Amino acid sequence: MRIAMLAPISWRTPPRHYGPWELMTSLLTEALVARGVDVTLFATKDSWTAGKLAGVSPASYSENPAIDAKVWEMLHVAHVFERAEEFDLIHNQADFVPLAFSRMVETPVVTTIHGLSSERILPVFKTYNDRVHYVAISDADRHPDLRYAAMIHHGIRLEDFPFNPYGGEDLLFFGRIHPDKGAAEAIAVARRAGRRLIMAGIIQDRDYHHKQVAPALDDGFVVYRGAVGGPDRVKALGSASALLHLINFEEPFGLSVVEALASGTPVIASNRGSMPELIDHGVTGFLVDSIDAAVDAIGRLGDIDRAACRAAVSARFTVDRMADRYLDLYRSLLG
Amino acid sequence: MRIAMLAPISWRTPPRHYGPWELMTSLLTEALVARGVDVTLFATKDSWTAGKLAGVSPASYSENPAIDAKVWEMLHVAHVFERAEEFDLIHNQADFVPLAFSRMVETPVVTTIHGLSSERILPVFKTYNDRVHYVAISDADRHPDLRYAAMIHHGIRLEDFPFNPYGGEDLLFFGRIHPDKGAAEAIAVARRAGRRLIMAGIIQDRDYHHKQVAPALDDGFVVYRGAVGGPDRVKALGSASALLHLINFEEPFGLSVVEALASGTPVIASNRGSMPELIDHGVTGFLVDSIDAAVDAIGRLGDIDRAACRAAVSARFTVDRMADRYLDLYRSLLG
Repeated sequence: MRIAMLAPISWRTPPRHYGPWELMTSLLTEALVARGVDVTLFATKDSWTAGKLAGVSPASYSENPAIDAKVWEMLHVAHVFERAEEFDLIHNQADFVPLAFSRMVETPVVTTIHGLSSERILPVFKTYNDRVHYVAISDADRHPDLRYAAMIHHGIRLEDFPFNPYGGEDLLFFGRIHPDKGAAEAIAVARRAGRRLIMAGIIQDRDYHHKQVAPALDDGFVVYRGAVGGPDRVKALGSASALLHLINFEEPFGLSVVEALASGTPVIASNRGSMPELIDHGVTGFLVDSIDAAVDAIGRLGDIDRAACRAAVSARFTVDRMADRYLDLYRSLLG
Repeated sequence: MRIAMLAPISWRTPPRHYGPWELMTSLLTEALVARGVDVTLFATKDSWTAGKLAGVSPASYSENPAIDAKVWEMLHVAHVFERAEEFDLIHNQADFVPLAFSRMVETPVVTTIHGLSSERILPVFKTYNDRVHYVAISDADRHPDLRYAAMIHHGIRLEDFPFNPYGGEDLLFFGRIHPDKGAAEAIAVARRAGRRLIMAGIIQDRDYHHKQVAPALDDGFVVYRGAVGGPDRVKALGSASALLHLINFEEPFGLSVVEALASGTPVIASNRGSMPELIDHGVTGFLVDSIDAAVDAIGRLGDIDRAACRAAVSARFTVDRMADRYLDLYRSLLG
């Protein structure tokens, strides 16, 4: 089975720190290669894979201002479709531009929809509803107007997130500094609970950071560590008493939620989007509807067994499970 | 000969007021249809042609905030390439996205390069150098790294710009309010010459307008008329003593320059970009290198015969000449 795996080129694959779409693309690619599948990863030329690497863009557009995003995205996507006949299947992880090429080739196209950023982009997904095999990343993210071939939750490599049975006293915020991710809500809840809050993530909304986060850093009870990667990330995820994930949008999947759980850290999350699919209320964390409820949940963290958090990920959110499910899908499509 | 003419969807084709790429696409389409060519115009669905209209986007993205530019551009471009077999030739007037589809079809593709906005977009044009037949719109705009099938100047409908043998005393600025177009320079020159300046065009750079244009309007010697279309545009172009076109960039073509000349109005322009191809120095206007030289040129406007301005356009910049040249190109490519 010859698979063309099309990564976005916003970041390197795998990403250096931030880049969730590229991260999932890399995890799936390497798991498939380990299973003996012939995978060609189409990504930036500085990317890495144990399979075959194909690329035209010298670097990612989010990391290199000389790379015009639209120009290189077009060249990148055209590259895989010009070579479509070499593959049994094209797996698109790079949003909607590749859909527009799908009717130009015979090769089946699978598209993982990493999130429908707005209703304004729906027309292009609807146009290719009968041509492209869509995969939802959660039940919450299924759009009623689209037809899906499967729903496959993201998976992580359990060995990358060693279990920390003890945790610590601090609360953790882990995500982009952006209103969607509820950084301000996390700060408010930590203050009310009288706990220290460690914050990690790229600043995506500078104005919001300036107004909501920066002023909270003065007294030392809120600590912003910037973009945290590598061993520091693993340590931060495992040594918290809880992850505060008080999102203000219908998040299609929460990678940091699953990573925290794998490390043994329970999650207190807004009860919306994919959160009910990721968190078992009262077992691996708490689903809340208000600041008050989040503060109450901190008082109930003693009820949570950290081993149960890791066990939930081990059962439902591993990269092996994800790779098996995609492989099943490929096989069913190829007959 | 079955031609697919691919317009941009930034504006309706033809545009309501601003939209030079859509305007040229419309002029060429209608001139070809008048010659009996079977042209299908791919444009927004509210566009008009005497040929066949094909479109997917309900409206243009610059006129309708519900239209996501990238989504609808992809659907629009995919539409023509999915139907490529119905045509002998695809003529792309819509920048570089269509290039990425060109190797997916057998149909020859002609691309009029309306301007290389930056070196950052060059990689995509270079990638398709051997596949797509490029047309430059001036010798000045030829890029040394690209191979061109032809250079074809834009042409206008002479009957749309009646000759005004008298002109008037006022100077005219006609173009986008943007540093590129030299609005501030036109104001400075008019003041030094003690002449009234009439300004017309969309505000593309609000900050520049606020700082450079708005303060000049107080004493009545500079008058900003906004986006001027229809009969008002024709009148403005014909009733000036000269068009001031003191551009600060290598303009690939100057449509308002040719329109002014057709109306009998000479042009004082920066000696750069395509200007030397459009203006005969001392005959139809003046090519200048400084504010001083532009002021001097106003003193020499009496040397210019307005009939010579119109005659130059009649000989070199009509839509009929442009259509004949494109038709010659199509025929040579189709053998």
